[in-house]
Amino acid sequence: MVKKLKIGIVGGTGYTGVELLRLLALHPHAELVAITSRGEAGLPVADMFPSLRGYVDLAFTDPATADLSACDVVFFATPHGVAMNQAQALLKANVKIIDLAADFRLQDTALFEKWYKMPHSCADILKEAVYGIPELYRDKIKNAKVIGNPGCYPTTVLLGLAPLLEQGLIDFSAPIVADCKSGVSGAGRKAEVATLFAEASDNMKAYGVAGHRHHPEIHAQIAQLAGKKVDFIFVPHLVPMIRGMLSTIYVKLSASANGLDLQGLFEKRYAKEKFVDVLPAGNMPETRSVRGSNKLRMALHKQADTGYLTIVVVQDNLVKGAAGQAVQNMNIMFGFDESCGLDIVPLLP
Amino acid sequence: MVKKLKIGIVGGTGYTGVELLRLLALHPHAELVAITSRGEAGLPVADMFPSLRGYVDLAFTDPATADLSACDVVFFATPHGVAMNQAQALLKANVKIIDLAADFRLQDTALFEKWYKMPHSCADILKEAVYGIPELYRDKIKNAKVIGNPGCYPTTVLLGLAPLLEQGLIDFSAPIVADCKSGVSGAGRKAEVATLFAEASDNMKAYGVAGHRHHPEIHAQIAQLAGKKVDFIFVPHLVPMIRGMLSTIYVKLSASANGLDLQGLFEKRYAKEKFVDVLPAGNMPETRSVRGSNKLRMALHKQADTGYLTIVVVQDNLVKGAAGQAVQNMNIMFGFDESCGLDIVPLLP
Amino acid sequence: MVKKLKIGIVGGTGYTGVELLRLLALHPHAELVAITSRGEAGLPVADMFPSLRGYVDLAFTDPATADLSACDVVFFATPHGVAMNQAQALLKANVKIIDLAADFRLQDTALFEKWYKMPHSCADILKEAVYGIPELYRDKIKNAKVIGNPGCYPTTVLLGLAPLLEQGLIDFSAPIVADCKSGVSGAGRKAEVATLFAEASDNMKAYGVAGHRHHPEIHAQIAQLAGKKVDFIFVPHLVPMIRGMLSTIYVKLSASANGLDLQGLFEKRYAKEKFVDVLPAGNMPETRSVRGSNKLRMALHKQADTGYLTIVVVQDNLVKGAAGQAVQNMNIMFGFDESCGLDIVPLLP
Amino acid sequence: MVKKLKIGIVGGTGYTGVELLRLLALHPHAELVAITSRGEAGLPVADMFPSLRGYVDLAFTDPATADLSACDVVFFATPHGVAMNQAQALLKANVKIIDLAADFRLQDTALFEKWYKMPHSCADILKEAVYGIPELYRDKIKNAKVIGNPGCYPTTVLLGLAPLLEQGLIDFSAPIVADCKSGVSGAGRKAEVATLFAEASDNMKAYGVAGHRHHPEIHAQIAQLAGKKVDFIFVPHLVPMIRGMLSTIYVKLSASANGLDLQGLFEKRYAKEKFVDVLPAGNMPETRSVRGSNKLRMALHKQADTGYLTIVVVQDNLVKGAAGQAVQNMNIMFGFDESCGLDIVPLLP
Repeated sequence: MVKKLKIGIVGGTGYTGVELLRLLALHPHAELVAITSRGEAGLPVADMFPSLRGYVDLAFTDPATADLSACDVVFFATPHGVAMNQAQALLKANVKIIDLAADFRLQDTALFEKWYKMPHSCADILKEAVYGIPELYRDKIKNAKVIGNPGCYPTTVLLGLAPLLEQGLIDFSAPIVADCKSGVSGAGRKAEVATLFAEASDNMKAYGVAGHRHHPEIHAQIAQLAGKKVDFIFVPHLVPMIRGMLSTIYVKLSASANGLDLQGLFEKRYAKEKFVDVLPAGNMPETRSVRGSNKLRMALHKQADTGYLTIVVVQDNLVKGAAGQAVQNMNIMFGFDESCGLDIVPLLP
Repeated sequence: MVKKLKIGIVGGTGYTGVELLRLLALHPHAELVAITSRGEAGLPVADMFPSLRGYVDLAFTDPATADLSACDVVFFATPHGVAMNQAQALLKANVKIIDLAADFRLQDTALFEKWYKMPHSCADILKEAVYGIPELYRDKIKNAKVIGNPGCYPTTVLLGLAPLLEQGLIDFSAPIVADCKSGVSGAGRKAEVATLFAEASDNMKAYGVAGHRHHPEIHAQIAQLAGKKVDFIFVPHLVPMIRGMLSTIYVKLSASANGLDLQGLFEKRYAKEKFVDVLPAGNMPETRSVRGSNKLRMALHKQADTGYLTIVVVQDNLVKGAAGQAVQNMNIMFGFDESCGLDIVPLLP
Repeated sequence: MVKKLKIGIVGGTGYTGVELLRLLALHPHAELVAITSRGEAGLPVADMFPSLRGYVDLAFTDPATADLSACDVVFFATPHGVAMNQAQALLKANVKIIDLAADFRLQDTALFEKWYKMPHSCADILKEAVYGIPELYRDKIKNAKVIGNPGCYPTTVLLGLAPLLEQGLIDFSAPIVADCKSGVSGAGRKAEVATLFAEASDNMKAYGVAGHRHHPEIHAQIAQLAGKKVDFIFVPHLVPMIRGMLSTIYVKLSASANGLDLQGLFEKRYAKEKFVDVLPAGNMPETRSVRGSNKLRMALHKQADTGYLTIVVVQDNLVKGAAGQAVQNMNIMFGFDESCGLDIVPLLP
Repeated sequence: MVKKLKIGIVGGTGYTGVELLRLLALHPHAELVAITSRGEAGLPVADMFPSLRGYVDLAFTDPATADLSACDVVFFATPHGVAMNQAQALLKANVKIIDLAADFRLQDTALFEKWYKMPHSCADILKEAVYGIPELYRDKIKNAKVIGNPGCYPTTVLLGLAPLLEQGLIDFSAPIVADCKSGVSGAGRKAEVATLFAEASDNMKAYGVAGHRHHPEIHAQIAQLAGKKVDFIFVPHLVPMIRGMLSTIYVKLSASANGLDLQGLFEKRYAKEKFVDVLPAGNMPETRSVRGSNKLRMALHKQADTGYLTIVVVQDNLVKGAAGQAVQNMNIMFGFDESCGLDIVPLLP
């Protein structure tokens, strides 16, 4: 008999929520037992998301009355600050936690408080939490009870840089520059003027001038992989597409990279990774080549005469950048095949 | 052991081709043995469609050298006129045929020749061919050797009208009007100015003024279901979305429809159909609610005081409107579960 | 010396507001003296709409303190119900009024109250108000003090039907059917989930199932032109484009239309109209062919064998469908050249 | 009496061609006398571009028979290599030339030949040609007979860098990085699969891996302004919007920039430039804020702790990036007000 996990989702009305539902609805080991929403309690989920008609029969339940303690795992697809307040009770009930918000991403609580404008309420649990990029931290994820599922931008930048950082091939005398572009779904399913169709369509802009919360997240993880804090510039842009993220990363190569086969290095680093695809030399990835799937694709390009390398990385921001990676983490935590429920051919065109 | 069909695809470089590949790549009973393309012979399929990297290892083969006679079934995702010239040889080799072009859609060869500007080369095979809408002709499809897979517009209009036509509830003194809207992928993957992004985006138009080939196809099928030829007006429109089709159908109800529960009638008619979804009264379907899936959704709306009924039908033009329906037909022809390989949650957002 | 009108705009933060500003900023006879907004008082207009930087120096003023009585004309780009409450005071001060909302569109106050859920507060002023389609009511507009600027859908449908209605060429035994499609800006600049980019892009739907407010407006105007109430079916659709509206109208021709040169009739009817363009036979209009301009283009197509005529009409919903038509009305009311400030080549691509 | 220039356009069927027509149709000093197209000779221009119905009455003429020698100025909106072959004859006839292709952009003919794969046929004329960015080279443009109208990317990057380059505020020990994003109209109106709506919509990618022709153009101009050759990295991206270009430029500031008010420096540099707008500190420009207009807007952002400055520049690639700048150059060459025919409020939304 196939083992079924009892799964709860807290905050199922946003895009990461509906994306979790899309992926879990057909997951052979998943049994959805509760989806909570304060505002929509009682509403059948498929009334809000008609794409789920025939696949999800549950109605939203009030978080106050939902008994999540009977779950094996609970996903938080909520605003920042919700998961950390429920973590202790759930862990006590032996429920594992995958937080798609930021509560368990930054180990430095002072940094968390600075960027998220709230005190961190469970620093002890945070210490045990694992940053959920399987390709970097798979062994820790296996035994984790709490996963801080990474932000969308960080996933692209960190997987793009990891092979170089691990091998010490970057010259940190120049800052690493990440010029990142996101589809509009990354802004969430909130009613806001700036992301209306008539505002965001046929238009693009840079944003987050005063600083974007993914900067400290990426910065800290680069430091982790580099063994020290390094200069890092991050400029996010909003692009008129629903899904899709493309990060163009500029790094100065260290002298030790001279003559190295970087293409080979990247290919080897990710050879066994089902969800990371290094394109053959001379190619450039398109965001649609991963639409709806958990794949992340990247390509390298050496900038002649400058000693710089450009790494271009694409993913679906809602899948590998959010819900897909969360399911991948779940699969690892419970010993399933890592691609279980994630074997999806990207939707092209 | 799972039975595997040997499958050939003739003409795999267009959108229905890549969509067949997307669906068949994960179909448990499908073994792709050949994909032909005159122009691209030798090119790995995944080089043209990077979404298939890791899922399809085949390269395109020259149609001249491809031995399709070893296949169990061959799909034609070609321009009109190709399938009919290869049908006889394939049938002789006991290969079943599913043609996604128009060669086997119109039983009236004079009509075919008028609209497609070529003589029909195998009228005898045509006579045996079945028009492939499973919800209308499932029993015939079971035993068919040749399927004329329907056009995208016809699928929406015919499934929208069928419950009324079958019950004789339309007053034919007024024409049936189908105002249909299609995403741009319906125009195919041909290099043409009119479907460039900078031409088709943020823009819409009616087209096919001089007559659209789906008019005679729908017209003939309505006559089939109505038992007689009736007036039918069809105006197709091009809408700036990649996938998706929405048909708004206006019919004059007959006196016998007075007081009938039409909503209940439609729901009952399609109650057992996995791929047809009649929305609850008061709803209207969106095209994205079926994006990437084989579902077709519809809703009814009575026009107060006029005696008219409006039926709004949506589908993904490349799935239920083309490749998905073709796979559904294959499943029926070979005795598989009808939804095999088609159990896909629509991609929303 | 060029005569300058003192112009006030009430409610300048929506799309019709910014569109009025775009058109009036370069209008040789326009002097903007006040733009009100309750929520944004004090904010420079160009801070909200950076497209206006260098063209509009005003800041929003509080409606409570703005003295509009010194204006020659005031435009209301507000929600329904605002203009009628300020009309009396403005008229007393000899200020002309152009209302882009619905307060002065429906002469039947019971109908107004049914559809807009509020009592009409100035039935006497309403009686004197003129429905502002210049091509139909130019003479009345010349002397009007209050204009009910038409809805976007009504402008397309009424101008598409007028030549037939005026000549008595429609057989009213069948309803007139208007299948209309609008870009998303028609929904306004309100923060709502349904019109977010990630919801409305790559998607389309019919809406207004329970009835759309433009139905009674069009219905009443058709009755006006036809001399009697006739059956009328109206289904609006939302299309993923910023601007643009396309209406496909289906009418049954009367016996008296037999043998008539309808193309010639339409061309003659609009020959002197600068903003109405009847395309040559065999063409179909695209919405982008009028983007940003006050033009409305249409084409006719006879539906073979059915006795039906299809009229396809396009306009920019924010220009001829709203702000442009309002300026056209202003030009007529004050004796300027009708195209003053509206001589704009559509933006294509 | 208003002076009218006789104007010819060679190659009017592409996007820069129709954009020139849009701008010149209402230009008070412009009289269009000939528009050539080999393929479309005889076709009324407004039949190809219905947006021009009522504004442009000309038909395309065969380049072989068009007598351009009677013109005051000829614009080349052609592929590269056409203008240089007709330049000598036109100059002899005292006709001024504005080439929107690349023939007169690169003073180094070896570089031209390397990137454009053709010999340069008139090096002597090239020497006299002026690179047409008015904000950098206005005085030379006044007396120029031949203008090499800049590429779209170069205009954004050079105007973004000029204030720093002119003041020696960049530390060239690190390369200048320009991460640039263009709408799809930048690829032209050629029938190609890669720019079809169904390929380019809801998708983005980097391109020009093997090198983009605007790299040497920008590189040479930076050298001109810097007084020496410096390292420059340029990565162009394709974004799903019709018009619009956004360039994000990363530069290392020199020690001499310490403590300087860079915001003030930029504002002062462009204070008198009607078409260059430096946004107030803390803002970021959107591409739609310049849609359809000749404005270029930019903003600065200092990257904390790194010594780097980011400059974000937007323009409409078809206007300031092509046809609008060409008209601006024409105005300067003939002594008209520089903004003549270019006083257009951007189209938002």
